[in-house]
Amino acid sequence: MVNKIEHIGIAVKNIDDANILFEKLLGVSSYKSEAVESEGVVTSFFQTGANKIELLMATNPESPIAKFLEKKGEGIHHIAFDVDDIVVEIERLKKEGFLLINEVPKKGADNKLVAFLHPKNTNGVLVELCQEIK
Amino acid sequence: MVNKIEHIGIAVKNIDDANILFEKLLGVSSYKSEAVESEGVVTSFFQTGANKIELLMATNPESPIAKFLEKKGEGIHHIAFDVDDIVVEIERLKKEGFLLINEVPKKGADNKLVAFLHPKNTNGVLVELCQEIK
Repeated sequence: MVNKIEHIGIAVKNIDDANILFEKLLGVSSYKSEAVESEGVVTSFFQTGANKIELLMATNPESPIAKFLEKKGEGIHHIAFDVDDIVVEIERLKKEGFLLINEVPKKGADNKLVAFLHPKNTNGVLVELCQEIK
Repeated sequence: MVNKIEHIGIAVKNIDDANILFEKLLGVSSYKSEAVESEGVVTSFFQTGANKIELLMATNPESPIAKFLEKKGEGIHHIAFDVDDIVVEIERLKKEGFLLINEVPKKGADNKLVAFLHPKNTNGVLVELCQEIK
């Protein structure tokens, strides 16, 4: 089972402008910016309570975030749940009938192993599982 | 400033089917279902860590959720932040240049006073402020 919401991912066109806006909204500053080459994104993280807000900007036109922005515009991109053992959780969810975009976890931002579920059978919600790398 | 993510709102077409799916996904059952007549929705809540997932199904074609489903399909509808004093927070955000859909808080689901920010100047994210009614 999932422990908690780890973060909410939000696709933005300009991460500098979005950083200023989310700083005003949340009343805290971004505590980290990190590029994830393999995903073609640059990220920015805000802590809010026990959760994080992750802003995502595409760094190349083939990035999944570039395609999302083109199709849907700016907005909430995914919801990430923290799990203790991502391999066990992937197996559990496959048995429950969920479709995995990543059957094998990959390295994501913020020192995490991540795997995405296909939104077509999660009511249109792009769900990420993530496990802290120890 | 905001305390934490209170809940994530997800628009669904069939709340009975979605309840079964989110129960499998999260490993917990919905703990409450509640209709909000004024919004034309029926809701279902799941606890996950310190946050909630709120499923929303339209109960009439004029409901904002019905319009969202028609325009965008199922998926994440809004992100709600918990605040101590919603009136103070509305004033703070107005001064910061945010546009409020509700300048006066209204009664929402789950014993909350709520107000929405206009997504056109929050990077396409529909943001809800909510304060527990004591």
